[in-house]
Amino acid sequence: MPSQVEIVEVSPRDGLQNEATPVSTEQKVELINRAIAAGARRIEVTSFVNPKRVPQMADAEAVLAALPRNNGVSYIGLAMNGRGFDRALAAGVTEVNYVLVASDTFSQRNNGAPTIETLAGWAEVAAAAQTAKMPTSITIGASFGCPFEGEVPVGRVVEVAKRAADHGVDEIALADTIGVASPADVVERFAAVSAALPGIRLRAHFHNTRNTGIANAYAAVMAGVGVLDSSLGGIGGCPFAPAATGNIPTEDLVYMLNRMKIGTGVDLAAAIGAASWLEGIIGRRNPAMLGRAGIFPPPTNIQ
Amino acid sequence: MPSQVEIVEVSPRDGLQNEATPVSTEQKVELINRAIAAGARRIEVTSFVNPKRVPQMADAEAVLAALPRNNGVSYIGLAMNGRGFDRALAAGVTEVNYVLVASDTFSQRNNGAPTIETLAGWAEVAAAAQTAKMPTSITIGASFGCPFEGEVPVGRVVEVAKRAADHGVDEIALADTIGVASPADVVERFAAVSAALPGIRLRAHFHNTRNTGIANAYAAVMAGVGVLDSSLGGIGGCPFAPAATGNIPTEDLVYMLNRMKIGTGVDLAAAIGAASWLEGIIGRRNPAMLGRAGIFPPPTNIQ
Repeated sequence: MPSQVEIVEVSPRDGLQNEATPVSTEQKVELINRAIAAGARRIEVTSFVNPKRVPQMADAEAVLAALPRNNGVSYIGLAMNGRGFDRALAAGVTEVNYVLVASDTFSQRNNGAPTIETLAGWAEVAAAAQTAKMPTSITIGASFGCPFEGEVPVGRVVEVAKRAADHGVDEIALADTIGVASPADVVERFAAVSAALPGIRLRAHFHNTRNTGIANAYAAVMAGVGVLDSSLGGIGGCPFAPAATGNIPTEDLVYMLNRMKIGTGVDLAAAIGAASWLEGIIGRRNPAMLGRAGIFPPPTNIQ
Repeated sequence: MPSQVEIVEVSPRDGLQNEATPVSTEQKVELINRAIAAGARRIEVTSFVNPKRVPQMADAEAVLAALPRNNGVSYIGLAMNGRGFDRALAAGVTEVNYVLVASDTFSQRNNGAPTIETLAGWAEVAAAAQTAKMPTSITIGASFGCPFEGEVPVGRVVEVAKRAADHGVDEIALADTIGVASPADVVERFAAVSAALPGIRLRAHFHNTRNTGIANAYAAVMAGVGVLDSSLGGIGGCPFAPAATGNIPTEDLVYMLNRMKIGTGVDLAAAIGAASWLEGIIGRRNPAMLGRAGIFPPPTNIQ
């Protein structure tokens, strides 16, 4: 077992992008500041995409402008083409992420074109990021199954990863966008990508749709994946996938890792507090469990 | 990975024992029949304990009298002393289970005496079961943590298991009664008990209180545990532990195992149907996720 894993806090972007309740720029900034106070050091803060497609992210520049700087925190912005990258760079993101979708049907709905065609946008972003010396990551959506096509062959995921890596990338995330993976799928698919791209940094993105999200995170960590995405409270979803549910909850993930003596830098009580505050913003209970059950063992009572 | 694991369906007993809504004998019998129709072949059907302590199990004899026979299904009854065993035997259970609790404080609340003192009841049950040639199992509650004492040392769990095994037992279950375990705890504790009692059949009982239940089930299966408890819909709780939540849901567990090509004999669609019916009986949504998310890949559409 590793002594630590890195967590990417995705609640401000993947968590909120599908949220029907309007969330103000100030509230987003407070969420990010609460995540930082809880120990998050890599945060997916927003996306620089068409605001007509994803209205919750229309204030990307305003969010970035309000964030604290020189604090060791990396702010990840999503960009889907050269224009998005230019916006992200001007706004001051410190990392850029691009999403490819492994299956053509879902790629068409999410990215507006079949998978391989969307490599053109990545080529633009990758080239611009290299010029700007900005770290990059690729997320391969539907890496474990597609809501429209069903099973996605392992070879397809490997092919997409290799084609993406041809343009240079610092990290590749396999995303279980619709929450269908089992731990065996996780072990198999990360091993296949790792074998095809030796030395590439791997990251896992799980949704807890069929109750396997935390099991998949455990399997990923045991398989050597060093970076995990999660969201405070387990909020989230996908506007372009039916019945999508939230990311794995940061506090539940960190609880498990703490019990396994795997460090994350995240403070559980602060994470629970941030998730509880978020419930008030969104106006409903979030799916995370630790806040309701309580940390174990409980903090020592002061007599 | 094993090619199959055995599931013990515990919804009729551990699932319902803490239920505030009255559930009739007829409804319990229907639940058991639905579990059988879904493929369950070992079912914890009731307990033969003081009805003043656990009112939901007051109709133990009536439930047993109404069950189908000669169908290859094993009906497990809980008995906590010789008198309970005699009732179970007369009612026609085919297996008897006894619960020990690893921590003294919780044992006092659950069993009315500190752990080691409650071995006397087990000695009675074990002796009577041997005479009756009835298979036995021990469940060690709070094997991963106690709601009153906090951490429970691994050595304590091993000691309790060994003391229980001195009386002869066919199977030992380690129970995470309050849902605090991590997969690392699961691996460590089952290995320790297995090392102390080589060849004993091991069984895992998890509650999904802090979102680690399915991850723990995966870890148990990978560690060679061949029997897992679960409940349809994930219903359940414990009347003597604060903030206890349900067992791991049968359908979510089976979904994961199916995706890993590990057989259980359980039919997912039938299990989802039974859990949905159970929501109507109890009058609220159950915590299982598969029924809401849907089986993946979806059954082929008929054009």
